[in-house]
Amino acid sequence: MSDPKDKVETYDTTLRDGAQGEGITFSLDDKLKLAKALSDLGVDYIEVGYASSTPEDVEVFKRLRTASLGDTKIVAFGSTKKKNVSAESDPGIKAILETGAKIATLFGKSWTLHVEKVLGTTLDKNLEMISDSISYLRKKGLTVIFDAEHFFDGYAENPGYAFRVLECAREAGASTLVLCDTNGGSFPDQVGKVTAEVVQRFDCVVGIHAHNDSECAVANTISAVQAGARHVQGTINGYGERVGNANLISIIAGLYKLGYRTIEEDKMRSLTALSRYVARIVNERPNPRLPYVGERAFAHKAGTHIDAVLKTTRAYEHIPPELVGNVRRTLASKHSGKAAILNKAKEFKFEITEEQAESLTKMIKELERQGFEFENADASLYLRMAEHLGLYSPPFSVHNYVATDNANKYQSVGMEVQIGDEIVLTTAESRKGLVDALRKALDRALSSRFPDVTRIILEDFRVMDLDTEKSTEARVGVWVKSRCDSVTFWTIGVSSNMLRASLDAIEDSKKYGLLVLSGKIR
Amino acid sequence: MSDPKDKVETYDTTLRDGAQGEGITFSLDDKLKLAKALSDLGVDYIEVGYASSTPEDVEVFKRLRTASLGDTKIVAFGSTKKKNVSAESDPGIKAILETGAKIATLFGKSWTLHVEKVLGTTLDKNLEMISDSISYLRKKGLTVIFDAEHFFDGYAENPGYAFRVLECAREAGASTLVLCDTNGGSFPDQVGKVTAEVVQRFDCVVGIHAHNDSECAVANTISAVQAGARHVQGTINGYGERVGNANLISIIAGLYKLGYRTIEEDKMRSLTALSRYVARIVNERPNPRLPYVGERAFAHKAGTHIDAVLKTTRAYEHIPPELVGNVRRTLASKHSGKAAILNKAKEFKFEITEEQAESLTKMIKELERQGFEFENADASLYLRMAEHLGLYSPPFSVHNYVATDNANKYQSVGMEVQIGDEIVLTTAESRKGLVDALRKALDRALSSRFPDVTRIILEDFRVMDLDTEKSTEARVGVWVKSRCDSVTFWTIGVSSNMLRASLDAIEDSKKYGLLVLSGKIR
Repeated sequence: MSDPKDKVETYDTTLRDGAQGEGITFSLDDKLKLAKALSDLGVDYIEVGYASSTPEDVEVFKRLRTASLGDTKIVAFGSTKKKNVSAESDPGIKAILETGAKIATLFGKSWTLHVEKVLGTTLDKNLEMISDSISYLRKKGLTVIFDAEHFFDGYAENPGYAFRVLECAREAGASTLVLCDTNGGSFPDQVGKVTAEVVQRFDCVVGIHAHNDSECAVANTISAVQAGARHVQGTINGYGERVGNANLISIIAGLYKLGYRTIEEDKMRSLTALSRYVARIVNERPNPRLPYVGERAFAHKAGTHIDAVLKTTRAYEHIPPELVGNVRRTLASKHSGKAAILNKAKEFKFEITEEQAESLTKMIKELERQGFEFENADASLYLRMAEHLGLYSPPFSVHNYVATDNANKYQSVGMEVQIGDEIVLTTAESRKGLVDALRKALDRALSSRFPDVTRIILEDFRVMDLDTEKSTEARVGVWVKSRCDSVTFWTIGVSSNMLRASLDAIEDSKKYGLLVLSGKIR
Repeated sequence: MSDPKDKVETYDTTLRDGAQGEGITFSLDDKLKLAKALSDLGVDYIEVGYASSTPEDVEVFKRLRTASLGDTKIVAFGSTKKKNVSAESDPGIKAILETGAKIATLFGKSWTLHVEKVLGTTLDKNLEMISDSISYLRKKGLTVIFDAEHFFDGYAENPGYAFRVLECAREAGASTLVLCDTNGGSFPDQVGKVTAEVVQRFDCVVGIHAHNDSECAVANTISAVQAGARHVQGTINGYGERVGNANLISIIAGLYKLGYRTIEEDKMRSLTALSRYVARIVNERPNPRLPYVGERAFAHKAGTHIDAVLKTTRAYEHIPPELVGNVRRTLASKHSGKAAILNKAKEFKFEITEEQAESLTKMIKELERQGFEFENADASLYLRMAEHLGLYSPPFSVHNYVATDNANKYQSVGMEVQIGDEIVLTTAESRKGLVDALRKALDRALSSRFPDVTRIILEDFRVMDLDTEKSTEARVGVWVKSRCDSVTFWTIGVSSNMLRASLDAIEDSKKYGLLVLSGKIR
């Protein structure tokens, strides 16, 4: 397994091609977070974005240049120069240089249809555009990866020209030639054959970039690697234009199964957490049917299967779930079986009896029925369990509030909070909405007794509808991420009343934060 | 294309293996409906269920025997007999006969691990179980399809035994040998090689049954067909145990692309409707990212892609969407420039000048900067564009409102709405939250002038935070799906005040709905 020829470079394009997916946008903050997570995983390259010279773009690259990303390299993406300008004066090429990235991925046309009908230029002119653009960036000291757009469609229509495009890119100094199945319509046998031919004819790294329109993106990628490709591009969870890109998680796990090396073996087990983290960032509920890392990937429903898995897990599991940080579930136990609760109690350092485990499971199941999803809200789960076990009684509770929104001009809240034996009345105002006013009112009430409460910082706030078919009566879930000194944690509130759901999540944040401040939780 | 050797039998197991998926159950009525839909599509076989002798089971088979299912055949599923009984007295085998089905699919073990560790029997005894069960059903006049469970894992561990299992089934009279990748962990090259070997050694139809645990189920199926398999098993939308079965829709469409014959060509265009129909039956929201038939399968977001597709659709589409009954969509988004706006204007039937296109693009970009994402909110985009072009002036506007939440007990709203020259004051109350109260107040205000306004139904309501790092001051986006007679549409509101965002989306819903009611939009 340590044969260097089995090493395959991983190239993540979630931030660029993933953002082409419907409903997916990344804020500056999201981009930085995701880059950090990807470098923790140990991917070789992160394609940060289509270099555009916008202030946000400039800022992202600037911040990532100084971020500590280990061995992970950041890449700026762009197209070959426009047909009527020099590489030097092309705005896209300029934008790439402005990012300060040391590596650029340039895409160029390799399908005659695209050259003639889309670019509206000649086949020779296209070669010149590719050559000039790459040479210029090489002269400026950049490493250039060349994405041959529509390579497989181009090859099918005019193999000679498709190869001339690659030769031209290679001669101009591209270090890696990436074969793109841009329309996503290819099949593994064809991808394998064509890739093998390219690998045979070129002395550089050959890569593969697949889309999932035939539902074969992962298979096509693996087929290319088996044919000699040593650079794979994909996105976390397969987000991307149309039905999406090749899912980098399934690629990494699949290549591991086949004996190729990508990320470090001990990082494999962070794949499940990463998948769900990225889903959270793009505000999608994690897809339970994702191979390897989905909630159902190792969920057994058929009685015969459950039976067999208890005898020998290989009976119905292609890999041990722990390998990718996932867990086995048997569906008799629904989302939170007793085993999971026992496991959580241990994690929280609660010593519980068999009987308490039963009763905790029942309580959690009821909350899940109401819409609570504790998977991403450990701090709320901790509070509910500790309270149920009689190990914790909340230091305060909100008795009453009146929240008024005056036509979006300003919002005001009056609130009655019980703190120990004392009843505290407080008010707050905002121009940012009622949730902001509620938070302020609660902070004011608590600060008389707990002056440190302002050290509990709300860092992230997420809202998601839970049962959309109910129109304006739908329940919503609110997730709040908080930080207290160096401890970060998530809490949740659920209600058909968005305000109530928000306040519940904020109350849990303060309650858990006070435990952190008191030294009871680290 | 009419070469008989290119004909591939399609075998649907949605009702049996699909029902092993988490959260999936079919009522008697569902089963009959789905069988009808599948026979309309023209699949060759429908696996109705695991024969169990329950009254419902007996009833389903009884009804399907007399239903008009064209050339589609119904199949009863079961396992080879238990180790200590005769085939004649085995309850499972009896149940198969009781269904009255003329075709039975029997699954048997082909992996030594399963024979020894799960069945707890000897390799020879397992062969006898397979042989006896098939012979007995053949004697009773049934056609028998043999599913060799875990064939690829079995082959990897003990190829000799795996082949003996197939020989034994064939000698006992099985007409079709189906190679099952039960754990779903295989890859296309391996599946292709093993299938080719089986095809070479047996004179009967060879089939493939794949699961998606390596995200390769469709590719594995296609690889098997390319190696000579002529019988493919799968489920609609890939429902099934764990991450699911091979998606029969993608298999049919993929084989079509490769020149194999499955269903009639003119039935291809019903694939999209069938996919969504089955999603409704199993009560799942249709997955927008499904290849071929998903809502996003032909949705173009990148400006350069939209531009190119307008020139020649093959530029970014692997098949014409009409082929499978799907449609092309262009998404207005941050990634799209003037070309997308021009296209949208055309779609909306606005005739605009170059200058107007510039100014519309600028206006839309500004709204996008504020957080509007129009790609899922065409009706709001229509209203903004029509207003900007001077083609529309809103029939009402909300001047003012006061919204009060009394500690989650009840909510009340007072509202001032201008309708034409008139100012209407209205109030409403709710126990479901302020958004519900706002919607009611607006409905009441409008119904005086537009009695039909209640025909505009809010069907779906989505909330999403837009810039999470800002804690409680974060902006949220609210998307509302509405239906007005047969027209459905989405609108959007954005604000740091969740209430205001909700009200804006609801206002747009009513405005667009009134245009539909007036006959200006169909």
